[in-house]
Amino acid sequence: MNLPVLVINFKAYGESTGKKAIEIARYAENVSFELGVEIVVAPSFVDLVKVKENVTIPVFAQHVDSVSPGSYTGKVTIENLKEWDIDGVIINHSENQVNISHIDYVIKKAKEMNMKTLVCAINDEISSSIAYLSPDFIAIEPPELIGGNISVSTARPELIKNGVEKIKKINRNVIVLTGAGIKNGIDVKRAIELGSEGVLVASGITKAKDPYSAIKELASAMR
Amino acid sequence: MNLPVLVINFKAYGESTGKKAIEIARYAENVSFELGVEIVVAPSFVDLVKVKENVTIPVFAQHVDSVSPGSYTGKVTIENLKEWDIDGVIINHSENQVNISHIDYVIKKAKEMNMKTLVCAINDEISSSIAYLSPDFIAIEPPELIGGNISVSTARPELIKNGVEKIKKINRNVIVLTGAGIKNGIDVKRAIELGSEGVLVASGITKAKDPYSAIKELASAMR
Amino acid sequence: MNLPVLVINFKAYGESTGKKAIEIARYAENVSFELGVEIVVAPSFVDLVKVKENVTIPVFAQHVDSVSPGSYTGKVTIENLKEWDIDGVIINHSENQVNISHIDYVIKKAKEMNMKTLVCAINDEISSSIAYLSPDFIAIEPPELIGGNISVSTARPELIKNGVEKIKKINRNVIVLTGAGIKNGIDVKRAIELGSEGVLVASGITKAKDPYSAIKELASAMR
Amino acid sequence: MNLPVLVINFKAYGESTGKKAIEIARYAENVSFELGVEIVVAPSFVDLVKVKENVTIPVFAQHVDSVSPGSYTGKVTIENLKEWDIDGVIINHSENQVNISHIDYVIKKAKEMNMKTLVCAINDEISSSIAYLSPDFIAIEPPELIGGNISVSTARPELIKNGVEKIKKINRNVIVLTGAGIKNGIDVKRAIELGSEGVLVASGITKAKDPYSAIKELASAMR
Repeated sequence: MNLPVLVINFKAYGESTGKKAIEIARYAENVSFELGVEIVVAPSFVDLVKVKENVTIPVFAQHVDSVSPGSYTGKVTIENLKEWDIDGVIINHSENQVNISHIDYVIKKAKEMNMKTLVCAINDEISSSIAYLSPDFIAIEPPELIGGNISVSTARPELIKNGVEKIKKINRNVIVLTGAGIKNGIDVKRAIELGSEGVLVASGITKAKDPYSAIKELASAMR
Repeated sequence: MNLPVLVINFKAYGESTGKKAIEIARYAENVSFELGVEIVVAPSFVDLVKVKENVTIPVFAQHVDSVSPGSYTGKVTIENLKEWDIDGVIINHSENQVNISHIDYVIKKAKEMNMKTLVCAINDEISSSIAYLSPDFIAIEPPELIGGNISVSTARPELIKNGVEKIKKINRNVIVLTGAGIKNGIDVKRAIELGSEGVLVASGITKAKDPYSAIKELASAMR
Repeated sequence: MNLPVLVINFKAYGESTGKKAIEIARYAENVSFELGVEIVVAPSFVDLVKVKENVTIPVFAQHVDSVSPGSYTGKVTIENLKEWDIDGVIINHSENQVNISHIDYVIKKAKEMNMKTLVCAINDEISSSIAYLSPDFIAIEPPELIGGNISVSTARPELIKNGVEKIKKINRNVIVLTGAGIKNGIDVKRAIELGSEGVLVASGITKAKDPYSAIKELASAMR
Repeated sequence: MNLPVLVINFKAYGESTGKKAIEIARYAENVSFELGVEIVVAPSFVDLVKVKENVTIPVFAQHVDSVSPGSYTGKVTIENLKEWDIDGVIINHSENQVNISHIDYVIKKAKEMNMKTLVCAINDEISSSIAYLSPDFIAIEPPELIGGNISVSTARPELIKNGVEKIKKINRNVIVLTGAGIKNGIDVKRAIELGSEGVLVASGITKAKDPYSAIKELASAMR
């Protein structure tokens, strides 16, 4: 995967589910091709396969359960995602935290199935702790800034700087992203300058008046 | 919906996810048309939309979260299911139990959106309790018999009889199903004779050597 | 138990744990004796036994797990509460909701052990649903009013009235309490007039400048 | 704390709650004095304070919630444990796993309050991951051996050896324990030889015919 990378978490927003998930994913694909910037989209479980059918950029799930195929009602297995060529999974988002055994299981199983893992962490100690488990990506997101108007790059520059340094010291192969409150190109540029290898963004794009322009602005700041 | 009804829970079995979910759903549709028996299929979240695109029989989700569209990562809203014309949801399966506020939320919201609700209960007191919340279906399933070789109709006939009676006394409009260990036509016939208005089945079909024949046998016993 | 009853949930407030739990429980006992009003206290798991040792009024736990004695780390069984003569348990508080199987288990097991159950419900449909399971008490508490300044008696009088009526129609033996935002004698009096057989209160007492006077004011309004 | 240390998890076993919790704790105290071996007891939340009143050896909780004092029903705060001079907490036992933010919160808050933390891990990758968060103790326990008849020392010697090495490389100050299936002195001796600085044991003592002798046997193997 080319760096830096822009990961768009569609969450369960009404603005980015159903047909609108496909629409935003297509905007992301267009921008990715135009600007040569790597963009990953993460739609809801229900929208995943339709989005995957419609774009060629990587598609990640927002979560996955830590069970093997079997007698589980309402659970989603990694194997089930793989059957539709889903490229990776986000796990441990601050809105959907799981225990360490769950994270460890998902990272190992996803590696076996040749899928990517992006594990979220709410601070730099936790991100260091997760680095030992060797996910492909760690995204540091202070929950108090998620969905807000002040970006992590402005409010907590030292968190990005220290987070990246600590993680890289433990495991050079982990790609470090940051997120929370990122809304414009300046936020992105600052995050990259501080050492971030990409950003994780949600409402900044999905709730923008013009999602296409929003994606373009953030991606442009990555070149 | 015509009664009795056969509801097939695909769970997270490797035999009934991905392309195989579509295949089994098509078998169910064929049998439904041939025999004129109502059949509902419930694939995983990931497979839901593809199954819905491929069959005309009702498609239910196996679970749904109790949140409105918004900032929730990895959650599935009823609104998101409705965007793809999913027909209903199973909720409170013994493998995925939720609190009463969750059940109450889902029943009310699904009614608003013109979707069906099937709430599971592990015994007849609980099924009576749920009847007050007016779901479309209640499925009584003793968890100790789920996935086993002895059906609820054989092991616990009085549970079906009493369960149906109690529920109907509270709310005549609720359709009462039973499930757990149902594997053949005799199990189905006995359940119907005891007052059940349909059955909820999983491994009996999904793990059968020949799922088409299995569906046909169960559905035939309903005519 | 004499009606009406005042139930004080100590929650995990710093003002009502540790030695302060014993202190507030003693105030409650004093008021109960002075005014002849039934008062129940519900301290934290950790404080339960010390409170029980220090007062003769009924002591309830704020929660209990739905497991039998066995290999469970960090869980609390009903049997363990009974070993210290704890009188009852609150269950399904909106801050700690559990599934229906959990509620059903706790009610049945507590009855067996001759302990009382107080099940909370966030609205009147849910309280009706729970009535069928025959707890000793149901407390209707709209979560949006909990900890606030407007009491349920002022904001939602119809909820109390309808809730009591519906529950009694289903099960005459259930004692119906209401709670949320209750801070003074007027709130209590109004709740009783609307049919409530007692109130469930927390911050109104535990965070009062003078908890003794607060208990006295609320209890006086019950005579 | 002197090493090696024997930590006894009382779990929710009927054999080690209520008055029996005090009894077993007293046996542990006697053995600790006789043999000069450090022993920690971890009774249920409900029994904690009574055990603490009756013994002078360290008393740990089996779990704690990750909330500050406030409006939480049925939750236990670290502050509440401290009010009764509880010495430490076990967290993330395989029977009660929590997310990393929870672990991080508990370790930081307990340090502030001068309390010890013992974090469980189901394998050596996870224990390494946790080592970065600097708990006082990490206990490696493969869940498939918990409560069984073959001890971790016999079944998985390499797990102990590698686990200790990895943890110490990350954080020399963490004390490494192992557990699961430990029933006799040979199991303990072998664990210590493999590098373990103590053992975490439950049913091996609580369900022994003669808990006093069982404690004595395990503690003797530690001298």
